[in-house]
Amino acid sequence: MKFLKAIQVEEFKKLLNSIPKIVSEEEIIPLEEGFNRVVYRDIKSAINVPHFRKSRMDGYAVISEDTFGAEEDNLITLNLIEIISAGDSPLKKIEKGQCSYVATGAAIPDNANGVVMVEFTEREGDKVTISKAITPGTHVINIGHDVKKGDTICEKGSLIDLPTLGLISSCGISQISVYRKPIISLISTGNELLTHKTQKLEIGKIYDVNSIVLKKAIENTGAKVKFLGIIKDNFEDLKSIIDKSLKESDIVILSGGTSKGEGDLGPQVLETYQNVDILVHGVRIKPGKPLIFAKLGQKILIILPGYPTSALSCFYVLIENFLRRMSGYPLKEKESKEFEVGERIYSTVGRHEFKTVKIREINGIKKIFPIKTGSEAISTIFNADGYIEIEELESIIEKGDKRSIYFF
Amino acid sequence: MKFLKAIQVEEFKKLLNSIPKIVSEEEIIPLEEGFNRVVYRDIKSAINVPHFRKSRMDGYAVISEDTFGAEEDNLITLNLIEIISAGDSPLKKIEKGQCSYVATGAAIPDNANGVVMVEFTEREGDKVTISKAITPGTHVINIGHDVKKGDTICEKGSLIDLPTLGLISSCGISQISVYRKPIISLISTGNELLTHKTQKLEIGKIYDVNSIVLKKAIENTGAKVKFLGIIKDNFEDLKSIIDKSLKESDIVILSGGTSKGEGDLGPQVLETYQNVDILVHGVRIKPGKPLIFAKLGQKILIILPGYPTSALSCFYVLIENFLRRMSGYPLKEKESKEFEVGERIYSTVGRHEFKTVKIREINGIKKIFPIKTGSEAISTIFNADGYIEIEELESIIEKGDKRSIYFF
Repeated sequence: MKFLKAIQVEEFKKLLNSIPKIVSEEEIIPLEEGFNRVVYRDIKSAINVPHFRKSRMDGYAVISEDTFGAEEDNLITLNLIEIISAGDSPLKKIEKGQCSYVATGAAIPDNANGVVMVEFTEREGDKVTISKAITPGTHVINIGHDVKKGDTICEKGSLIDLPTLGLISSCGISQISVYRKPIISLISTGNELLTHKTQKLEIGKIYDVNSIVLKKAIENTGAKVKFLGIIKDNFEDLKSIIDKSLKESDIVILSGGTSKGEGDLGPQVLETYQNVDILVHGVRIKPGKPLIFAKLGQKILIILPGYPTSALSCFYVLIENFLRRMSGYPLKEKESKEFEVGERIYSTVGRHEFKTVKIREINGIKKIFPIKTGSEAISTIFNADGYIEIEELESIIEKGDKRSIYFF
Repeated sequence: MKFLKAIQVEEFKKLLNSIPKIVSEEEIIPLEEGFNRVVYRDIKSAINVPHFRKSRMDGYAVISEDTFGAEEDNLITLNLIEIISAGDSPLKKIEKGQCSYVATGAAIPDNANGVVMVEFTEREGDKVTISKAITPGTHVINIGHDVKKGDTICEKGSLIDLPTLGLISSCGISQISVYRKPIISLISTGNELLTHKTQKLEIGKIYDVNSIVLKKAIENTGAKVKFLGIIKDNFEDLKSIIDKSLKESDIVILSGGTSKGEGDLGPQVLETYQNVDILVHGVRIKPGKPLIFAKLGQKILIILPGYPTSALSCFYVLIENFLRRMSGYPLKEKESKEFEVGERIYSTVGRHEFKTVKIREINGIKKIFPIKTGSEAISTIFNADGYIEIEELESIIEKGDKRSIYFF
């Protein structure tokens, strides 16, 4: 087993990219639950869509040759033999000199090869006069126009968005094959933590935030989250919950317990596993330096900092896209925009800082200002519009410099 | 009652903007369910966060005056009287010449007014030598630093995002007051429609798509959707389902049944209501012209076109932001980008067309190409990257023209 020294952000990102996607099994689910799921097997259509010829317009289905020569001053009269509404199955086929009324979307009767729009017709009883000639195929939607039988409508690995959901349902598919979601166990550690259901707030105790916020943030990456509770900083409790979570899930995420002071139990517990490989212990970033990333066989264990602001910004900056890749989700592109810095910003040399900032308008010009509270305050991330990146060797960003803000 | 003629897009948008937000009642929910809900009453914190003085660092809590003069060559020795971990309530107060160990986040004992970082100390038994002087307040996070008791942490009308959820939970609030979601009844109409659970696919029938796709699209606007099923195009069935849905919901959305041909029952049914005001019957757009927008007292009824591609693009272009406003959600800003048109595009004069297009790279340059299928095909929206707007009086967009594509 090896403890690596704190590594740089870029090294850490490279390492994450080298981890292959979790091997995940197939799950068969009803189509209604398919939104934002990832396709496991190519989805092919078992039918043509439409599976019958249908009309694009309200009008009269005809043998188009019957209309040749029809003009406003040369009306041609056909015999109406049937009214076909959308949903009807035509009962009669068209013979020379005949027509059937077809509503938009209705099936075209056999032998007909075109539809004259209702605007160019006049009906009296069962006689229909036509004032416009049409070419064969006019206003007829052919079989398989939308989807052909056997066509792959959705490829393995693609995310099911709304139009895809529509396409699948138009093919009458009611069960789909998707990747099972990665299961992520989430554990909050720290003797100081209380659930927000606790009434009694003693000196030294604080309400746990990560159980709610990180849970939701992780769920949004396409994973299923099991929150295993708040665990005290003691070796046995931590060991037993990690044992349990490694059995029950693909990835284990702990928050808290990675500080360098007393009570830093995470690494001690990890050392007791034969197959552990602590790939990262510390990333030279601020906030969130004491991040741990370990592999235990096929399982992955991540320890995020305990402060919610650190945990959440670490998560967004480093972990979110990794988890999205594990789920087969498309990666999130960070949106950024350049503005002038409105006030001097200090940073710690030797750490790549993700400084939370807000945008304020000064005399009509939008400028970047640092958030004054730090990672100890949850309001820091609440008040921020996004963050700027400050390189390891920069200690000061001067007022007037230009920087890109990445929005949360 | 009045039937208006088909109106222009801009008129329609103006009309939608004039409709006030639905009067919606308060709902009390557990915090865990608060993500993406809209706050009904200002949320105030009943506690200070933190509610005790805590340490920002691992170190020794001291009376800072005791450290004055300390330097590497002038060590000052203090008596260690207590070890305070995060979560502990300090048992002893600090007197002159004493110190207590405090972990990051741990409570500062009474009388102490600063923390010396562990890096500037050396401990032997209960003696701690200090090599650096500190000023009062150093590394102490004061009571209320993050949130002050009584502060409004979340204002009426704001959407609860992840940082907000964190802020609320840090204040130990477990129940929150939010607006009840608008209830929207969704009905698919048409004799031709089958649920995708139907096995038997007869000539003339097609699978209903809107029940799944529109449902999800509407849910994403912050509303609760009740899908009331597929209703046949017959007066009694339609009347009875509209009766029921007006009772049970704030907004009723039907798809289908707005074509101008036979079987256009929606308006006929609406005419039977005393209090109906059909504000719009037709918008001069393509696709989706035969859109109906009616008020019945406080209730709103919208009839979208039946073709899924028309229904969905009408929804995105015209209805989505209206529903978001009804839910109290922030409006979606449409993202757009300008590209060259790669091929001549035709449009219908007299209708504002939302033409579905895709982006293709030609010799390394991204260009806009029209989707060849129309609103009759669900694959149209599936294959599209977005749409371009074509004004009512334009009939042709030439190859080489520049246009903005709005992404779906």
